[in-house]
Amino acid sequence: MQAIAEIQVIPLGVGTSVRTWVKRAHEMIVESGLEVELHAMGTNVEGDLAAILDVVRRLHETLHADGVPRISTAIKLGTRTDKAPSLAAKRL
Amino acid sequence: MQAIAEIQVIPLGVGTSVRTWVKRAHEMIVESGLEVELHAMGTNVEGDLAAILDVVRRLHETLHADGVPRISTAIKLGTRTDKAPSLAAKRL
Amino acid sequence: MQAIAEIQVIPLGVGTSVRTWVKRAHEMIVESGLEVELHAMGTNVEGDLAAILDVVRRLHETLHADGVPRISTAIKLGTRTDKAPSLAAKRL
Amino acid sequence: MQAIAEIQVIPLGVGTSVRTWVKRAHEMIVESGLEVELHAMGTNVEGDLAAILDVVRRLHETLHADGVPRISTAIKLGTRTDKAPSLAAKRL
Repeated sequence: MQAIAEIQVIPLGVGTSVRTWVKRAHEMIVESGLEVELHAMGTNVEGDLAAILDVVRRLHETLHADGVPRISTAIKLGTRTDKAPSLAAKRL
Repeated sequence: MQAIAEIQVIPLGVGTSVRTWVKRAHEMIVESGLEVELHAMGTNVEGDLAAILDVVRRLHETLHADGVPRISTAIKLGTRTDKAPSLAAKRL
Repeated sequence: MQAIAEIQVIPLGVGTSVRTWVKRAHEMIVESGLEVELHAMGTNVEGDLAAILDVVRRLHETLHADGVPRISTAIKLGTRTDKAPSLAAKRL
Repeated sequence: MQAIAEIQVIPLGVGTSVRTWVKRAHEMIVESGLEVELHAMGTNVEGDLAAILDVVRRLHETLHADGVPRISTAIKLGTRTDKAPSLAAKRL
């Protein structure tokens, strides 16, 4: 089913600046083929719910494989049946 | 990979009291076989990351099938490679 | 102290479409004088931490006064002492 | 106005284990006089909305003063006018 989501990845144990890892996570989300909107507090995506959750799983696996010892991720998911959920429709 | 998570389901369009749906979501999480801790602001779980994300997907599908027109879910995910993440270890 | 934040207001008990109330909340944030960036999953702000928290409190009070019976708000706060936190600096 | 909330403090730049700082934050919340419930993914509180937001502000100030260079905090706030919001009432 179609969903919109926000993904915020917080890497721990890699120092105060986490830009390298947040950028790596964002690139993985872009490469997933989901519709993507980057903002200062996370990455918004639109697409198939299972595909969104799958990229979240791969983010954790990849960042750990690349050396991040601990990851805290916050995800907001939105789905609805009265109309198709879309990032565009949520803009005021 | 092993993970801990918090899942908070917010059903919209079903009135001010959402207890019926939150309880249904919690039961689905319990039935998933993950280790579960319920608290006032969500349900904490521990288990395989893919299994956690799978129950999140099924929650959305089931609650919509049961008549909830819109769902906003907040998920926090924690993984680490220096030791096994566990709900018990996070208790102060 | 300076902070960046994301504010997401979810009104309950007002039906499936919550756009009117989310727009009202966003306008209050804009009127607060904080630096504001709107996106599909919330409103990002930058400014004094106490001022940010004050607008959150006023949002709840105002939306309730305007007839929303229940509100669930998600806030992410970021502060740092190694440099000034800013929305601009967090853009990749 | 009365509110319930969840506060999750994530200290960055202090290594992989953040228990010392999370414990310090939790103690400050307890000392605030709010009703408190600790769980593995954060601290739930119940009390006056302004008092809750005030303890969040003081958490950031105190942890920075104690040496934490960067803090990411996630807060969930719940208020309602149809009845008094309470942690007890949200338990299933």
